[in-house]
Amino acid sequence: MSKTFGDLETPCVLIDIDRVEANLARAQAHADAQGLKLRPHIKTHKLPRFAKRQLALGAIGITVQKLGEAEVMADAGLEDIFLPYNIMGAHKLARLQALNDRVTLAVTADSPDTVAGYAQTFAAADKPLTVLVECDTGMGRCGVQSPAQALALARQIGMSPGLRFGGLMTYPAAGRRDEAEAWLAEAKQLLAQAGIACPVVSSGGTPDMWRDAENRVVTEYRPGTYIYFDRSQVARGVASWDDCALTVLATVVSRPTATRIVIDAGSKALTSDLLGQEGYGLVMGSDGVIVKNLSEEHGVIELAQASNTPRIGDLVRIIPNHACVVSNLFDAVHLISGNTVTETLPVAARGRVD
Amino acid sequence: MSKTFGDLETPCVLIDIDRVEANLARAQAHADAQGLKLRPHIKTHKLPRFAKRQLALGAIGITVQKLGEAEVMADAGLEDIFLPYNIMGAHKLARLQALNDRVTLAVTADSPDTVAGYAQTFAAADKPLTVLVECDTGMGRCGVQSPAQALALARQIGMSPGLRFGGLMTYPAAGRRDEAEAWLAEAKQLLAQAGIACPVVSSGGTPDMWRDAENRVVTEYRPGTYIYFDRSQVARGVASWDDCALTVLATVVSRPTATRIVIDAGSKALTSDLLGQEGYGLVMGSDGVIVKNLSEEHGVIELAQASNTPRIGDLVRIIPNHACVVSNLFDAVHLISGNTVTETLPVAARGRVD
Repeated sequence: MSKTFGDLETPCVLIDIDRVEANLARAQAHADAQGLKLRPHIKTHKLPRFAKRQLALGAIGITVQKLGEAEVMADAGLEDIFLPYNIMGAHKLARLQALNDRVTLAVTADSPDTVAGYAQTFAAADKPLTVLVECDTGMGRCGVQSPAQALALARQIGMSPGLRFGGLMTYPAAGRRDEAEAWLAEAKQLLAQAGIACPVVSSGGTPDMWRDAENRVVTEYRPGTYIYFDRSQVARGVASWDDCALTVLATVVSRPTATRIVIDAGSKALTSDLLGQEGYGLVMGSDGVIVKNLSEEHGVIELAQASNTPRIGDLVRIIPNHACVVSNLFDAVHLISGNTVTETLPVAARGRVD
Repeated sequence: MSKTFGDLETPCVLIDIDRVEANLARAQAHADAQGLKLRPHIKTHKLPRFAKRQLALGAIGITVQKLGEAEVMADAGLEDIFLPYNIMGAHKLARLQALNDRVTLAVTADSPDTVAGYAQTFAAADKPLTVLVECDTGMGRCGVQSPAQALALARQIGMSPGLRFGGLMTYPAAGRRDEAEAWLAEAKQLLAQAGIACPVVSSGGTPDMWRDAENRVVTEYRPGTYIYFDRSQVARGVASWDDCALTVLATVVSRPTATRIVIDAGSKALTSDLLGQEGYGLVMGSDGVIVKNLSEEHGVIELAQASNTPRIGDLVRIIPNHACVVSNLFDAVHLISGNTVTETLPVAARGRVD
């Protein structure tokens, strides 16, 4: 007998598989039309099932953010993995080598130190490690600071036995993709002048994915959130509420006043991520009612006008500000189609912080 | 051979057991001197080991925030559990009854609906359920809105077969404990006038724990964070940096500029909780250097002045804004004494959201 929402314990995560399918298909069609390769970031869903579905629809491989995520995905049969992170330390480098032996793998570096660590580990390896240079094109996080530095690091990689230069990688700052493109184009030109092939230029971020590819230097794209979308993506105009595939199902556990509702989803379910939003999520189907305050196990909703509904015991669904971090908080998610729960999946790559 | 920090994978959580012991002993001594019973909230540590240590030092039982946490603690042998939450729904009420059969248990209610749910479940039970009335004394979360409402709900509980009125419970608003005390005193007086015994008046919150007990109506206290403390508690003057027992060990993975350091601990390790602080944690042993920006797997530290240290590959320890939520993100924590890792413990009650 199929389950309905009322059969579930709250709080829990619902994933609308029809919306997932539509979101994935739309992005792949767009990428195909633009001649852009997709390498989806699995941090949003952390589910081998969906990673495989992304590949079936045309993605060329997956992106992960931590070694532990890569290991989970490799165990699940994913064979082409990009890990855009500086991996260091003897134990992690040993894990990296073991992983490189069993899948097609690429990592990044943004410093001579990181490259030296890779080189030391892989100098005597049977299979070389592919290393892309991470470029800070305006985000202000990791990355070499200039195209000239990118060239220097590419040279170091190319000269290191056991390493192979794989290209350039960036995560562009929001709203500054033109700058990022110009930066990468200059770096690519420097590489060409030096006679260094640059097989891949990888960029990411769901919001910018929809721009057209005119003059694009980027060859691969790493969208993550597009599979689920969330409140912050809707606010940026990238998706509609009807595209949002991940919701948190919660129970109204208290109605202390005519305008205050308390639900059993707090920061342990929704996180404290704001991403520029007011409050911590939107009540689905409401006209802008938000979760105004959070503590760990309570979400407080303040209504603008007195109301008797929803009542104590009623279920509500919350569209969170940031879908990716919600996935990391739950051991399992429930797949739904309409109002039917079709299946429950363990979140295989949850909590893989190292 | 004992491990040192360099043997650990980062990011990870370090718990200084000497500081834990000192924090627990100091709080228990204070409570004993004040004639106040302690019922520590395990949400901060989520570890049966430390719950048992709290009892050994004199606590009368433990507090948990979700049914799932209570079940984990009962499985681990904890026998006196307070669950200050409105429990509802057929499945959760069945779990509650099973739990009540095996431990000394109390829950809360703040509405006739919640009490009706308990009454329906426990009417025919062999063992009654103890129910305290949750009081909103200024926090603006759950709780009855007036002492008169508290009395009415206590009456309903007392008249329900299978239920036993256990007293009053509140979580006081920060800095408004006088108001909370007055509120509770009035409710207790109404109960006395109605001939209803009120065996327990339970309050919580680490910061207010240190106030003296003069005129105190509260009989039990539920401190949580005091076992570890954190940056927000230091900011409130409740603890010193040297009391902070939980730190996140991270590796410097990038030094893109002379003033920017990137560590491998992001929101998946530190959370986005601000609790009124600027940034997401303090670099331990630094003169006020903070984690300024977070993404899921990166923490960005901006130095005021150019510096070459810490270097890529160096370890840093971060004192997070909010210790409790960090415990919820890690499958295990490392116990340390000084710079030695003595043991690794699974966080048994992690992720128990329902």
